[in-house]
Parts: sequence; structure tokens; C-alpha cells
Amino acid sequence: MAEEVKVFGVWGSPFSRRVEIALKLKGVDYEYVEEDLSNKSSLLLKYNPVHKKVPAFVHNGKAIAESQVILEYIDETWKNSPILPKDPYDRAQARFWARFIDEKCMSALWKAFWKHSYNWEVVSSRHHGETLLGCEDHEKAKEEAKEHLKTLENELKDKKFFGGETVGLVDIVGNFIAYWLPRIQEASGVELLTEEKYPRLYQWIHEFENHDVVKEKLPPSDKLLAFFRGRFESVSTSK
Amino acid sequence: MAEEVKVFGVWGSPFSRRVEIALKLKGVDYEYVEEDLSNKSSLLLKYNPVHKKVPAFVHNGKAIAESQVILEYIDETWKNSPILPKDPYDRAQARFWARFIDEKCMSALWKAFWKHSYNWEVVSSRHHGETLLGCEDHEKAKEEAKEHLKTLENELKDKKFFGGETVGLVDIVGNFIAYWLPRIQEASGVELLTEEKYPRLYQWIHEFENHDVVKEKLPPSDKLLAFFRGRFESVSTSK
Repeated sequence: MAEEVKVFGVWGSPFSRRVEIALKLKGVDYEYVEEDLSNKSSLLLKYNPVHKKVPAFVHNGKAIAESQVILEYIDETWKNSPILPKDPYDRAQARFWARFIDEKCMSALWKAFWKHSYNWEVVSSRHHGETLLGCEDHEKAKEEAKEHLKTLENELKDKKFFGGETVGLVDIVGNFIAYWLPRIQEASGVELLTEEKYPRLYQWIHEFENHDVVKEKLPPSDKLLAFFRGRFESVSTSK
Repeated sequence: MAEEVKVFGVWGSPFSRRVEIALKLKGVDYEYVEEDLSNKSSLLLKYNPVHKKVPAFVHNGKAIAESQVILEYIDETWKNSPILPKDPYDRAQARFWARFIDEKCMSALWKAFWKHSYNWEVVSSRHHGETLLGCEDHEKAKEEAKEHLKTLENELKDKKFFGGETVGLVDIVGNFIAYWLPRIQEASGVELLTEEKYPRLYQWIHEFENHDVVKEKLPPSDKLLAFFRGRFESVSTSK
């Protein structure tokens, strides 16, 4: 009997893309459902009743929410092409850095460009005035973000990926830094992550976005760039 | 050869107590090092250089930080008395609720009583004015906290523990709600969690704090109550 595997996501959400990358790495076929965040489907609300957010993941009728929780589930369910290392200590390190990215980097990076913490829903709802650059909090967030990126740069060392030779949990969770951030930088004209200051992260970004499997599950570059250009422009015109 | 297992904690931190509860449930002997947060030891800074916080955990020379990451490591390393369920879907559910407690409940509950989000360090540093009740944000946080507690109440259903018949990940991560919150309520005079409104959580609290193993690793009730009384009094006198 064919398995039911479904992902409820949004094309530009790094969180739902994490789940798609993991499934693609495992070679698991799935059905993708694009959500309209301004008019969420009843299925999304059914499958993620607590947070009411993408991604929601369904496997043979059972629903799971929260991208990092879904990634662990996928790795435990389909054992090929492991996302987490085998050794308990290495697994703990991967989980530590994945949490570091979500709890420290994502929030500082997002605040460096927007006045609120990470919320794709708010950004994509195109409310004017939600995107504000240059205030004091942004400067603080920028400094914090740069510091966190330096911590990641040091952790990467001379490895190809955070997972070593292959893409692993930290790389997948870091997709926002690898792919979204450079396009947000280009759209906003504000550069935090530069090749000069973060040569290892820069090389990692190159490896990540050109990875045979990963690149198939990243949003189209032009579309993402145009989206963020629109966001930043709507702010400057609404000021 | 005897194993080296060390926990760097603070007596009143629910986060370091989580690690101690897990080790005690597994019957793992460990050395406990009490930290002075106003003068952190060089070992704590060495073992948790990124966050510089308790708990830090050391096993045979290898250090791990972040309580939930440590709990997963402990469960993978000592297989007896499992903290996480066996089935991948049940594991995902446990991880989902553990994250819900940390990301939603803890922060709303803490904000309901203090003006900042959870930070034991700030509270224990006894700065006057850090504890403020009654402003608008607190009211909002209180409503949020009550809603999150209701979500947990519904999730608990008629189970003895979130983990079923035995204490598991969600119960351990929920130690703040089970043990700290009632004492903060008593010290502040503000009640969010009442038996009338949350009968299942109330029964769970009773089971948790009287659990043979858990109760040995909870801070003394009088000491914790006196600590929080001191915190709330220092505020009213500094107003």
C-alpha cells in the first residue's frame, strides 16, 4: 500500500522548505499543499491546531507540527541518508546548533531587517510599515546577528557542511542563512554576511545552494528576490 | 572505570533540575556543581561557551548545553527507564509538547510575573524594579499563559503523566509549571493555575511533586517560596 506523506507549506517559508529538503534527501515521495496564509485551509488548522502555522506534516493520517520535530521524525522513520549523526554526543551537538540557529540567529537576523521577530505571515501579508530599517533596535539586532554568524563560522571550521561531508540537520535548519539571507541582503541593500568577514559560511552557502538534491527544493531565486524587493519598497513608499 | 558525569547548575533553576531529575530517574550517579551566577566558574564558561548558562553537562570529558538537548542525550546514552517513548510518532508528540512548554508557556508565565522573559539570572541577581506586576503587558501575558495552560490541560487528558503511567520528557520539561509556578503564585498573590479551572493539571502537579524519584530532585519548597517572596517584596518596597 502506498504511503500517505503530505506537507502543508508556503513557497517562501524556510520552515516548510526544511521538511521538503529532508524528504527529498531521503527520496520519500510526498504530496505538497501550498497554503494561503491569509486564508488558511481547514486541513492546516486541523493538522496544526496549536500553532496554526506551516509546516504541517502528515504521515498515514498522523499529523506532526514544528519543523525541527518533523525533521527528527523523518530521520527516525526513514533510516537511509541519515540527517542526524549516529553517535549520541554528535547528535547532541547537531541539536544544539540547530536550536542555536532557530533561537538566536533567526530572531536576530529577522529583527535586523524587520521590527518584529520572525514571522513570514506578517511579512507576506504586505502590511505597510511592518518593514523598518535603521532604528536603534535594528542596530542592536545587527550587531547580535553578526556575532551569532561569527559563532557559526567558527563552528563550521573546515567542514564542507555542518554535518561533515553530507547535508545534515544543522545545514537544513540553516537554510534561511544559506539562501534567504543573501537575497534579503540584496533586496534591502544591507549586508551583514559578507565573503570577506565570513569566508567559511560563504563557501558553505555555495555548497548548500548548489547541492544536487537541496537545490531542487529551494524557492526560485528571482521570485524570492522580487518578493523581498517588494517588501522593502512598500516600506520606503509608505514612510 | 568509573564514568565522569557532572552537572553545573543553580539550586533554583528549573532547567538544571530537569537534568538532575533525568539522571536520578535513570539511576546515574553524578557530581553536582552549584554555580554562582554573579561569578560564573571558568568551568561553566568552558563547558557552555556559547550561552554561558546553566545547566552544563559533562560526560567523560565531553560537554553538552541546553537542557532539552541534554535530556535527549541522557535518554540515548542510558537506555533504562526511557524518558522518550519508543514509537517515532509518539516521540514527535513528546518533543512537540516539550517545545510548546519552553517556547510558549514558560515565556508567557514568566512575563505574567516579571517584565522580562524567562531569566533566572536576572531574578536571582536581586535588582530592584525587575519584578513588576500589573502593567498592561502582564495582563496580556496572563491571558496568554492561561490559554496555554488550558491547551496543556486538554493534552493531559486522563493520563497520570504526560508520558502516560511514567514520568517522561514533557513532565520533566514541565517541572516549572508543576513546582515553581504554584510557589510563585503563593509568593505573588496572583493565581493563574487553580484547581477549579485546571483540575487535570492540578492532579498532575500532585503526582509529579510526590513522585518517589522526582521529589528528591526538586528544590526545598520553603526555600523556593522564601526566595520568591523576597523577590516580590523587594519590588513593592522599591516602588
